[in-house]
Amino acid sequence: MTGFKVTPWEVSGNIDYDRLVQQFGVEKLNDAMLERIKKHTSDLHFMLRRRVFFAHRDMKFLLDEYEKGNKFFLYTGRAPSGSVHLGHLMPWIFTKWLQDTFNVELWFQFPDEEKFLFKQGMKFEDTQHWLNENMLDVIALGFDPKKTHFLIDTRDAGLMYKEACKVSKRITFSMVKSTFGLGNDSNTGAIFYTAMQAVPAFLPSVLAKKEIPCLIPHAVDQDPHFRLTRDILPKLGHYKPASIQCVFLPPLSGVEGKMSASSASEQAIFTTDTPEMVKKKVNKYAFSGGQSTIEEHRKKGGNPDVDVSYQYLRMLFEPDDKKLQQIYDDYKSGKMLTGELKAILIEKVNAFLKKHQAERVKAKSKIEKFLIKR
Amino acid sequence: MTGFKVTPWEVSGNIDYDRLVQQFGVEKLNDAMLERIKKHTSDLHFMLRRRVFFAHRDMKFLLDEYEKGNKFFLYTGRAPSGSVHLGHLMPWIFTKWLQDTFNVELWFQFPDEEKFLFKQGMKFEDTQHWLNENMLDVIALGFDPKKTHFLIDTRDAGLMYKEACKVSKRITFSMVKSTFGLGNDSNTGAIFYTAMQAVPAFLPSVLAKKEIPCLIPHAVDQDPHFRLTRDILPKLGHYKPASIQCVFLPPLSGVEGKMSASSASEQAIFTTDTPEMVKKKVNKYAFSGGQSTIEEHRKKGGNPDVDVSYQYLRMLFEPDDKKLQQIYDDYKSGKMLTGELKAILIEKVNAFLKKHQAERVKAKSKIEKFLIKR
Repeated sequence: MTGFKVTPWEVSGNIDYDRLVQQFGVEKLNDAMLERIKKHTSDLHFMLRRRVFFAHRDMKFLLDEYEKGNKFFLYTGRAPSGSVHLGHLMPWIFTKWLQDTFNVELWFQFPDEEKFLFKQGMKFEDTQHWLNENMLDVIALGFDPKKTHFLIDTRDAGLMYKEACKVSKRITFSMVKSTFGLGNDSNTGAIFYTAMQAVPAFLPSVLAKKEIPCLIPHAVDQDPHFRLTRDILPKLGHYKPASIQCVFLPPLSGVEGKMSASSASEQAIFTTDTPEMVKKKVNKYAFSGGQSTIEEHRKKGGNPDVDVSYQYLRMLFEPDDKKLQQIYDDYKSGKMLTGELKAILIEKVNAFLKKHQAERVKAKSKIEKFLIKR
Repeated sequence: MTGFKVTPWEVSGNIDYDRLVQQFGVEKLNDAMLERIKKHTSDLHFMLRRRVFFAHRDMKFLLDEYEKGNKFFLYTGRAPSGSVHLGHLMPWIFTKWLQDTFNVELWFQFPDEEKFLFKQGMKFEDTQHWLNENMLDVIALGFDPKKTHFLIDTRDAGLMYKEACKVSKRITFSMVKSTFGLGNDSNTGAIFYTAMQAVPAFLPSVLAKKEIPCLIPHAVDQDPHFRLTRDILPKLGHYKPASIQCVFLPPLSGVEGKMSASSASEQAIFTTDTPEMVKKKVNKYAFSGGQSTIEEHRKKGGNPDVDVSYQYLRMLFEPDDKKLQQIYDDYKSGKMLTGELKAILIEKVNAFLKKHQAERVKAKSKIEKFLIKR
């Protein structure tokens, strides 16, 4: 299968990221841009070195402003609708690195109406439950509460709705039809929604009464929302938000599509999974680039490029390039067996989750610190 | 001209209210219903006696519930966009009578985004200005702050947006297209808007955690909004709101259309007009049912049915039926001249405005009492 689909609501197929870059009209992160970032960060995050974050919009503008002393703020988010899995964490971990490295504010949006509006059976009781759960995962990653602001659409609509109206006045039905594929049978809340997703890109500027550049780290499927946002914000007197975009963490089943909570739950590793569950999922479901017998594997070697366990190490769990290269070489040569590769991943994931789950428990008493004062 | 048009955004032509009743599918207020209302109010407001309020939906249900001890609340509103004129006051004066007579709560909505979304050149700075001005007019009418709650859409979106999302999930683009004539080039805020107008019809029930019947006194052009609201609310577990609907106060130019702030300002009498302005407007612009010469008038008599001054007395300024009848007879017989009729109206309007303007000044310090606590 060579076809693929990437929209804010569906990711499927074998994604050709080069073609996607062209389709979406984003820029690839090239060496020159990475060097420029490195000037300010001294070290490059492994997700940049390995092009897990592979594309951007307007990073040149953002760094120009930064170098003039005009600091940016970060904006990312999560639409509460289910458990957080490793695929969600990827851009958030990178966002935390950006916050720490550049010492900037982060506005984290929880659009708790989005899934309610777009999913038939979803109730606000459900999104409220998942909002509470999902906030714990974000806090557990260690964001600084002094510089991190949770923006919850239904709770903070008093701040957001008026600004969303300004955006929506510039968006016609034709535009959401062509951008998101909405139709005559779409509900009017879903039609309005993208205006709410635009708001965090300029709300901090409204509140500060001066323009602050915005950088949105996000998975590339959200680009259509922000493309529309970028078209409109200058008309309202605001900067276009810059963005830095990552690929998808694949599901356990193989390197096509993205890890998703809505597909079969054994295809995703959730932050609340036990060590036994992780072990079982990886051993049983993680697609392997190995050969069918040990002898054949020793002789022909494995293919790390399609091996999900290797990809998780590359994208999330092995920051050390040398160690990763060693694993790559050993697996490719046949020196390392699939079971051994999986064992490395399982250990890494469980070590991460042990800490994450402990922080998640502590996070319960910290939520208040992240909420907008009313 | 026999054609007419009545939508929430346009009222024009010689309105045939009987045909409108059929078109909209509302019920006429008949004698039996007025008698039933009178059982609870001892006296009938002149706007009921004279069928200025002429139609309703579900008054039977509302009174059934009331007689069972299930009190209703009132909901009406004003989209801030300009000065308040006499046409706006008509349903509000009646609403105050309902509040006083039935001793019930009133939720008064100020949808300060509506005109922003529907009018090209309207800015939020403008609607904010008119919001402040318009609140003074409502307060000046003497509503009880203990039982009256101002719901301002952008300010109170923290209470309203989530509820509006629930409504909007049940409204498709096709529905707003056919109900309001919106199209592909309509903006997404305008498409979403009617859901916000639905909210006050059930928000008090949400806050009270029990169902409270709702009665909406309003001019008949707003019926399409509430027709949609009535279709949807039962699906959300709420009562359909009842409504009681009035005709339009005509502009000074004649009994077609409605008094409107957006048409030429000499066609409307504003609450901030000076006595001189009122005198000039009535004398110069108020369409007269009189004859062209005094002699002819004495002989043939005037026509009070098309005389705007008489209609203002009938609809707003002369509560005494006997006095009104006397004016009718005298004008019709030719005993009363147009100038004399106009003088009566001018005196009534200016007496009313003198008190209203004094209350309007005092109202500035009372606004806070009417706002929702946050």
